[in-house]
Amino acid sequence: MTTVAAYAAPAAKAPLERTTIERRPVGPNDVAIEIKYAGICHSDIHQVNEGWGEAIFPMVPGHEIAGVITEVGSAVTAFQVGDRAGVGCFVDSCGKCEACRSGQNQFCSDGVSTYNAIGRDGKPAYGGYSTHIVVDADHTLRIPEGIALDVAAPLLCAGITLYSPLKRWQAGPGKKVAILGLGGLGHMGVKIAHALGAEVTVLSQSLRKKDDGLKLGADHYYATSDETTFERLAGSFDLIVSTVSAPLDLGAYLALLKTGGAFVNVGAPEEPNSLNMFGLIGGNKILAGSMIGGIAETQEMLDFCAEHSLGAEIELIRADQINEAYARVLDSDVRYRFVIDTATI
Amino acid sequence: MTTVAAYAAPAAKAPLERTTIERRPVGPNDVAIEIKYAGICHSDIHQVNEGWGEAIFPMVPGHEIAGVITEVGSAVTAFQVGDRAGVGCFVDSCGKCEACRSGQNQFCSDGVSTYNAIGRDGKPAYGGYSTHIVVDADHTLRIPEGIALDVAAPLLCAGITLYSPLKRWQAGPGKKVAILGLGGLGHMGVKIAHALGAEVTVLSQSLRKKDDGLKLGADHYYATSDETTFERLAGSFDLIVSTVSAPLDLGAYLALLKTGGAFVNVGAPEEPNSLNMFGLIGGNKILAGSMIGGIAETQEMLDFCAEHSLGAEIELIRADQINEAYARVLDSDVRYRFVIDTATI
Repeated sequence: MTTVAAYAAPAAKAPLERTTIERRPVGPNDVAIEIKYAGICHSDIHQVNEGWGEAIFPMVPGHEIAGVITEVGSAVTAFQVGDRAGVGCFVDSCGKCEACRSGQNQFCSDGVSTYNAIGRDGKPAYGGYSTHIVVDADHTLRIPEGIALDVAAPLLCAGITLYSPLKRWQAGPGKKVAILGLGGLGHMGVKIAHALGAEVTVLSQSLRKKDDGLKLGADHYYATSDETTFERLAGSFDLIVSTVSAPLDLGAYLALLKTGGAFVNVGAPEEPNSLNMFGLIGGNKILAGSMIGGIAETQEMLDFCAEHSLGAEIELIRADQINEAYARVLDSDVRYRFVIDTATI
Repeated sequence: MTTVAAYAAPAAKAPLERTTIERRPVGPNDVAIEIKYAGICHSDIHQVNEGWGEAIFPMVPGHEIAGVITEVGSAVTAFQVGDRAGVGCFVDSCGKCEACRSGQNQFCSDGVSTYNAIGRDGKPAYGGYSTHIVVDADHTLRIPEGIALDVAAPLLCAGITLYSPLKRWQAGPGKKVAILGLGGLGHMGVKIAHALGAEVTVLSQSLRKKDDGLKLGADHYYATSDETTFERLAGSFDLIVSTVSAPLDLGAYLALLKTGGAFVNVGAPEEPNSLNMFGLIGGNKILAGSMIGGIAETQEMLDFCAEHSLGAEIELIRADQINEAYARVLDSDVRYRFVIDTATI
């Protein structure tokens, strides 16, 4: 066991504070990673606040982790000391269930989340707001040269969350893709959809971030608060990826799809939506959900991002700014992801 | 113009009665069909009753039409007098819009429904409860030898309504497919999914039609009124096709899908459904709609049904039984489709 520094919420809704935690010894299939950067995801805040149900405290959040390997277990062949490595939203999966066998081990029926979970050793799992972590090598990603570690960190959640549906629903040349919401998730959606060759439209509440959107790679930018947007764009899109976490007028958005088009939700609204089935039946339309990606697809995403020089747009913060950053995330006041410099923990 | 016999509703919600209507002269691209059989679709009743909005009266319903060609226009090469022919839910489309170009001309932005619509000639279109019809040859289907015309008629709507989503969502060997609801649509879904090689489960309110379901080709049959069904079948299906026209507990049905599975609605509930997005996001699940099919796909379906000797299960009725049949459809008292013998009109 190694004692390492971390930032933790001692109880639900409590401010995060500096503490120390124990990391397990490096087992034969493990790697130890010196964490350099950890992104702040909105879901960290949901979990600290028990917005998604009862949680485990003290909680060390963080599932957008980038660092360097400092030790490898005796059976590990895929990594060496000094490799640049990442950890995403889960740190274990069974490899045997139907989800694992289909390459979607993010849905493993016996999986372990990076934090707010109990690990295989029966002890609480602690996330990335820390200086070091020990992780199963099969659940460790390789961060290619060509992406700086600070802008790579958010790819481990925000990047894969957008990459997976854009790939599955065939964003690419000749396809018109809309990204709904330009925040931490949406800005990665614009970058990745553009790099995949699609014609990209941002649909945002206002035109406030229009300049940013166009710089990130969007071809068009419309405000959803402007009702003419819905008339003008009727029947336009092959794919809409929604990063919005509030209930939407789904019928209005389904009407923006072409025949056979798909609206894919990656945001997680807590309230149910109302849905008129006619909006799906007329035009053979699709409403789908998508949640992060499997390990293999996450590696594919990192390789794609390196090839296209894509990283997140970040505001680098010190650890003592985490609570302030949380407040700003809740205010939608971040362009576009806070990343903690873990050297300051 | 030719005067022909028909059954029509003279006004909204009025009983249907015998009348005569005019059919247009056979134009260069038309065929004239002597109608032999016309299926009764639930949507006929919806439209007679103006359940889907204001309608055009007198209304001659019927979009499940099977007969024999009696005359072909001067420019028609695809059909000859004596050919067995069918007409489905639409009789014209533009061929130029995005839906038409993608082979989905059922969604043509300038299409003409078989009845309760205004044709290209500016006159009301009359459907299949009649002895004869004149139709554009490109919107006429070939009914292969090997399917009797009476059991072929319902394929033109019920058949394609199920065939299209089963094909699009890849029902086939190794796939577990559930058909929700065993009525006019559902019974064709069981037959077609079985013929496609899928393992087929019927999900019906009760076990009342279980023997029928198994005879039609289902491998399993469960009652949705039994709560243990939802526990037992959790995570089971690659595809669920719902033929139910009432709002459903979508979350309960989405939980029956495997990771990445699809729930496809072909029923058309008038009331909106409540949908919690977590049911889609967890497991990358899909909720989609599907409406009939294009002309090319409808022909593919007829050829498939002929090859597999599939027709509808029908109760053949006289024209003077139409109003009684409507009442029985509303009571779900038909196994599984009423077909009018148009010789009795």
